[in-house]
Amino acid sequence: MAKRIHNFNAGPAALPLPVLEEIQKEMLDFKGSGMSLLEVSHRSKWFDDVINMAVERTKRLLNLGEDHHVLFLQGGASLQFCMIPMNLGLEAKPVDYINTGTWSTKAIKEAKIQGRDVREIASSEDKNFSYIPKDFEVDEDAAYVHFTSNNTIKGTQWAEFPAGGNVPLVSDMSSDFMSRPFDVTPFGLIYAGAQKNIGPSGTALVIIRNDMLERVPDNLPTMLKYTTFAEKNSMFNTPPCFMIYTIGLVLKWLEETIGGLEKMGKINREKGSLIYDFIDGSDFYRGTAEKDSRSLMNVTFRLPTEELEQKFVAEAVEADLGGLKGHRSVGGCRASIYNATGIEAVKTLVEFMVEFEKKNG
Amino acid sequence: MAKRIHNFNAGPAALPLPVLEEIQKEMLDFKGSGMSLLEVSHRSKWFDDVINMAVERTKRLLNLGEDHHVLFLQGGASLQFCMIPMNLGLEAKPVDYINTGTWSTKAIKEAKIQGRDVREIASSEDKNFSYIPKDFEVDEDAAYVHFTSNNTIKGTQWAEFPAGGNVPLVSDMSSDFMSRPFDVTPFGLIYAGAQKNIGPSGTALVIIRNDMLERVPDNLPTMLKYTTFAEKNSMFNTPPCFMIYTIGLVLKWLEETIGGLEKMGKINREKGSLIYDFIDGSDFYRGTAEKDSRSLMNVTFRLPTEELEQKFVAEAVEADLGGLKGHRSVGGCRASIYNATGIEAVKTLVEFMVEFEKKNG
Repeated sequence: MAKRIHNFNAGPAALPLPVLEEIQKEMLDFKGSGMSLLEVSHRSKWFDDVINMAVERTKRLLNLGEDHHVLFLQGGASLQFCMIPMNLGLEAKPVDYINTGTWSTKAIKEAKIQGRDVREIASSEDKNFSYIPKDFEVDEDAAYVHFTSNNTIKGTQWAEFPAGGNVPLVSDMSSDFMSRPFDVTPFGLIYAGAQKNIGPSGTALVIIRNDMLERVPDNLPTMLKYTTFAEKNSMFNTPPCFMIYTIGLVLKWLEETIGGLEKMGKINREKGSLIYDFIDGSDFYRGTAEKDSRSLMNVTFRLPTEELEQKFVAEAVEADLGGLKGHRSVGGCRASIYNATGIEAVKTLVEFMVEFEKKNG
Repeated sequence: MAKRIHNFNAGPAALPLPVLEEIQKEMLDFKGSGMSLLEVSHRSKWFDDVINMAVERTKRLLNLGEDHHVLFLQGGASLQFCMIPMNLGLEAKPVDYINTGTWSTKAIKEAKIQGRDVREIASSEDKNFSYIPKDFEVDEDAAYVHFTSNNTIKGTQWAEFPAGGNVPLVSDMSSDFMSRPFDVTPFGLIYAGAQKNIGPSGTALVIIRNDMLERVPDNLPTMLKYTTFAEKNSMFNTPPCFMIYTIGLVLKWLEETIGGLEKMGKINREKGSLIYDFIDGSDFYRGTAEKDSRSLMNVTFRLPTEELEQKFVAEAVEADLGGLKGHRSVGGCRASIYNATGIEAVKTLVEFMVEFEKKNG
């Protein structure tokens, strides 16, 4: 038996064990091809099946119809920060951004580099990004309104998405994509770095509505145009085959083992309750996000002192609970509990927290 | 035992079996971490070791000193086509390109989209790209001169690299990188999509000389600046961890099992001789590239009729020889014999060709 720890990494993060086992099993011979998936041509029936299945599962899980394309791009969410204003900006129209922390700030920076008229229509910077803004108005004339659905570093998440009216929503869903069901209708574009809930690092999944493709300017570099990927089923050039394969396996697990996004959402709410209820009942641990803005994906918390936090993280590692250190930019502790981190792992963590408090409280 | 065929794919292509076996072995538990490499943080000691080792092996294999950075980028060689003129172009200076086929043509197209003054200083288009141009002059004032070192589709390869004088060479080495030793001194930048000789698809390895970094304009999108990657050891954002890991394993095989690039080059010359000598002695098979321009990586050849070519490819598959169909844009047959396709595979292919000629010649 391989040693396996409870993995609370913020990303790259835990993957479902059956997915890893399937990858392992067919590493030398992918489905009787006599080749590893790493060695088959992307212009082969084998890979066609892989990518088409990943697209179809995405569409089924999110109830997408013919109005949307599912694309696999390289460069992570960070490349999307510049591709979005390049592709979806409109001459003389503002682009609206809601700033909820590090990732939003980066997205805003790249839109400005593109020379767009960026309006920051809301921000929670006044309270160190510890909450999700409620009062703001989207400019009816804006080309799009951009927000980050979940904030890994500050541990906040939109419980309900902002209302954009007729303005298309654009969202960085890297860290809560496929963690719960949602209505895609108001979204012009959704993007997600795979390495949190749906796969390994090295691919961003992009869902783009057909009307957004009409905005793409002709004179962009070929590899930075969404149309290039939409027209070629993400295979204008050689795609990141292994990532798409792994994403397909994770989505299969989500559909067939978990039973879809309603069920995944329910499990994630249970996991969140377990740990937040415990923190709320403790004087030793303290959550850093405002209650109505808390993330079900990244639970950020502090202990009475930094010394205790260091001790907590170190002793957790000894107990095979990994990845509990807060982001280097904010310190503290963070438990990332994405889809593949199961309820048993969360229970084990809470038990550890109880014991640690007893010994150190 | 897993079924394994002889893999002559043009890319993604064969990987060394020991590399696949090592990936398989540590898929559930990477070096005692209790996590898959797919699940470890890129900000961890585990991954630091992985990326640093891949960089160090690249530097050792190519005798690189402190003058160069080794970077891992996403987007394949195709994204490099636009990043190069964006980053290395110089105000009011021409950029020189040598056109040897499909990939060069694409690189030229992207430089033009960037608004650069592109001079096509040589081309073999007059003879359907069947040779490497010999007579051309590099403009002493050019910002750089770009060429494709090996042409997968037409089966040609530069035996000796062009002389650029004081003008830095920039080369797409996607399909013969690490197949032979060479002097990096005249190169300002070298790039290679990994999926031919050094790994799976989803990463481009870039070697950039320090003086080229000084050319990078400030106002580019962050993810499209070489400086972003050079300053952060390719980890400004989450890198494609699994690809870098696999590249590191392939380079380890190249150093420790093969014994370095001199030896790899010798093996590749032997493989090339085996198949080209046979083709030259046959009236049935006909090579498509001029003899002095032939590629040691992609052997392109024709049979007397297209019907026979189809039969050849189909019967080869039956005999567990995969990937012998020519590129869809040119037809015919092609045997890609990259580093990981060993001499035994080439011998088996030649034996099959002998038998096929006997039955059908």
